[in-house]
Amino acid sequence: MTKINENYLNLPGSYLFAEISRRVAAYKTAHPEADIIRLGIGDVTKALPPTIIDGLHKAVDEMGSDETFRGYGPEQGYTFLIEKIIQFDYAPLGIQLDTDEVFVSDGSKSDTGNIQEIFSLDTKVAMTDPVYPVYIDTNVMAGRSGLLGKDGRYANIVYIPCHAGNSFVPELPKEKVDLIYLCFPNNPTGTTLKKSELKKWVDYARENKAVILYDAAYEAYIQEDDIPHSIYEVEGAKEVAIEFRTFSKNAGFTGTRCAFTVVPKTVMGYTASGEAYPFNKLWNRRQTTKFNGAPYIVQKGAEAVYTPEGQKQIHEIIAYYMKNAKAIREGVQSIGLEVFGGVNAPYIWLKTPQNMDSWTFFDKLLNEAHIVGTPGVGFGPSGQGYFRLTAFGKAENTLEAVERLKTRLKL
Amino acid sequence: MTKINENYLNLPGSYLFAEISRRVAAYKTAHPEADIIRLGIGDVTKALPPTIIDGLHKAVDEMGSDETFRGYGPEQGYTFLIEKIIQFDYAPLGIQLDTDEVFVSDGSKSDTGNIQEIFSLDTKVAMTDPVYPVYIDTNVMAGRSGLLGKDGRYANIVYIPCHAGNSFVPELPKEKVDLIYLCFPNNPTGTTLKKSELKKWVDYARENKAVILYDAAYEAYIQEDDIPHSIYEVEGAKEVAIEFRTFSKNAGFTGTRCAFTVVPKTVMGYTASGEAYPFNKLWNRRQTTKFNGAPYIVQKGAEAVYTPEGQKQIHEIIAYYMKNAKAIREGVQSIGLEVFGGVNAPYIWLKTPQNMDSWTFFDKLLNEAHIVGTPGVGFGPSGQGYFRLTAFGKAENTLEAVERLKTRLKL
Repeated sequence: MTKINENYLNLPGSYLFAEISRRVAAYKTAHPEADIIRLGIGDVTKALPPTIIDGLHKAVDEMGSDETFRGYGPEQGYTFLIEKIIQFDYAPLGIQLDTDEVFVSDGSKSDTGNIQEIFSLDTKVAMTDPVYPVYIDTNVMAGRSGLLGKDGRYANIVYIPCHAGNSFVPELPKEKVDLIYLCFPNNPTGTTLKKSELKKWVDYARENKAVILYDAAYEAYIQEDDIPHSIYEVEGAKEVAIEFRTFSKNAGFTGTRCAFTVVPKTVMGYTASGEAYPFNKLWNRRQTTKFNGAPYIVQKGAEAVYTPEGQKQIHEIIAYYMKNAKAIREGVQSIGLEVFGGVNAPYIWLKTPQNMDSWTFFDKLLNEAHIVGTPGVGFGPSGQGYFRLTAFGKAENTLEAVERLKTRLKL
Repeated sequence: MTKINENYLNLPGSYLFAEISRRVAAYKTAHPEADIIRLGIGDVTKALPPTIIDGLHKAVDEMGSDETFRGYGPEQGYTFLIEKIIQFDYAPLGIQLDTDEVFVSDGSKSDTGNIQEIFSLDTKVAMTDPVYPVYIDTNVMAGRSGLLGKDGRYANIVYIPCHAGNSFVPELPKEKVDLIYLCFPNNPTGTTLKKSELKKWVDYARENKAVILYDAAYEAYIQEDDIPHSIYEVEGAKEVAIEFRTFSKNAGFTGTRCAFTVVPKTVMGYTASGEAYPFNKLWNRRQTTKFNGAPYIVQKGAEAVYTPEGQKQIHEIIAYYMKNAKAIREGVQSIGLEVFGGVNAPYIWLKTPQNMDSWTFFDKLLNEAHIVGTPGVGFGPSGQGYFRLTAFGKAENTLEAVERLKTRLKL
């Protein structure tokens, strides 16, 4: 009799975005005339810029000729891309990396989801709350979470609350933890950590031989000077941190699929008997065994990001989205609601009026303003009473949504 | 203290193809003048055909305009591709599938490597021997294998020997197993099963509530009429089998990355308390949580396979490789060696002369004929004394290699 992985049964049945779709569909059926604006899901809307399109076309042509055709590539990614990543994304920050410390992949969802495999099953996991659901769900599937309590928390996961009360700066856990998921600029709150704040976590990890999984998916949106773009800007982080980056949000690759993960050779884990072992070797083994590299065509498209024109073009798109973010942020403020994020991130996190719960506000916003956002509680218990709007929409829709907030929402 | 997944330490250090590279590099250093022909790794060499190149270019253009840009797609794959897969690959065989039973991915290596996650950790795993190393390695990483013995076998894996003595037809295991990996046409032996032989396995699985993981990566190479292309041609297989297919070998996608996995909703696993649960739901949850879909561009390229021109073009390429296979097979036979495969598969599996071990023959072939192949023992203990040659090379190199076998190899 073939038994299933029963850990999967500990996951809640309905996924956040499925429930949102259900409510929107129901509303549309009842109100077919409603012109709904979606500021919910974190997907980009602008086309890939011309230089990337060029890079993709050239690579497609290479695949069409026996002389330049590419079959299996290195599972870790092509060196032409890895060298550019190091040169453009890390060297200017004073961070030295070897090419075998960078692993190109098909996405940060895969990487942040798969990385837990190389850790022991009895690893004590901590994560900020609210959080990107993939971090939790993949640990539930592996059996590290224990059961989901009525308070919305898994018994064996350490939740680190981030809310207006602590200015969204997570406090070090009281109990000892082994593995810490941090995402800054944060999804969903759009908030950031200063270098000094991040340093506390690096120091904690060094003292406790813990590892930090640092998701920097939104680093390209940082506008202010004193916000670190990489955790490796913090001294000692190369001993304790694995960093995730993606082309999804800086270069519009959500449907093109390319990302990378940095695993410095100095990040150590331990055997039960206390022997140190580098996570770089484990991740390399994981990727070479279960993954066959991102498509050559896609890696050539990603390489085009690292040209002067590519850089200029992606910065224009980021500026476009950040103009949306500013408009939403100011619009929400103008109607008297408390607002966070949206300065160094494409996410705006607002406190619901009159301590309304997140789903009630979802329905209110949909009913009164025909705007779809994301209930904060969907990202974890500390997201209750908050709500996420995203800046990835088209400018005209975003401005129209802001106008509706001002004129249609009954507060 | 962060502990590692110690199961990884049960994997042998050096990977088959790494050892081959090492030996070839050493030989080239000692003999820089040697013109080495590689018939080792199973990678294709022919360019993507024009219709697929066209499909890719069109999709790249779509990504360059805001109106036709695609962001996140369905994790399970686009319906436009899934419908074509069902229509072209299954309907002609009389197999009915729903669109939510087909999951498009970035490769069969990922799928055959990840699938074990949805099974319980105490699942008893069986696989034919020799075998594609990914099946074993991923079970070692998960902790199902036990330790590697001196006989080259993991303690808790059930090996089903395939060799000349049983005509490469695997016998049903004596002990009860839960999960069975089968690959036909087989990698590495190139051999196939008739429908009646495959039926014994389907019947076994139905009787024992076991599940068959059926890797049909090479089905497009089947030339003979009585060989099933899909396990679902066998009655009852939809109750017990998950099938893996890829565009890598039929359409040259080894560097472009697209595959799919069929998980019929009728394939059930069981909880410890005996309740049935569909693996389709588990795989859907796995893929939606840890994967974000294959690139839109790549899925459009794969869709182009399913046009009259696309079908014609890929069949020409398959015919080209199968002509190589025939030449190798006949060449090996002509020098008096026993040979298998190469009729319905791009792999030729030969018995080494004088019961030579696989690595000794590797060195002999490299030294005397400057040909690189793959030692059979690299695929498992039952591969000892066998050797794999592949038909994916260029025709002129393949013919030259055959000539060298006839004239240079000292037997």
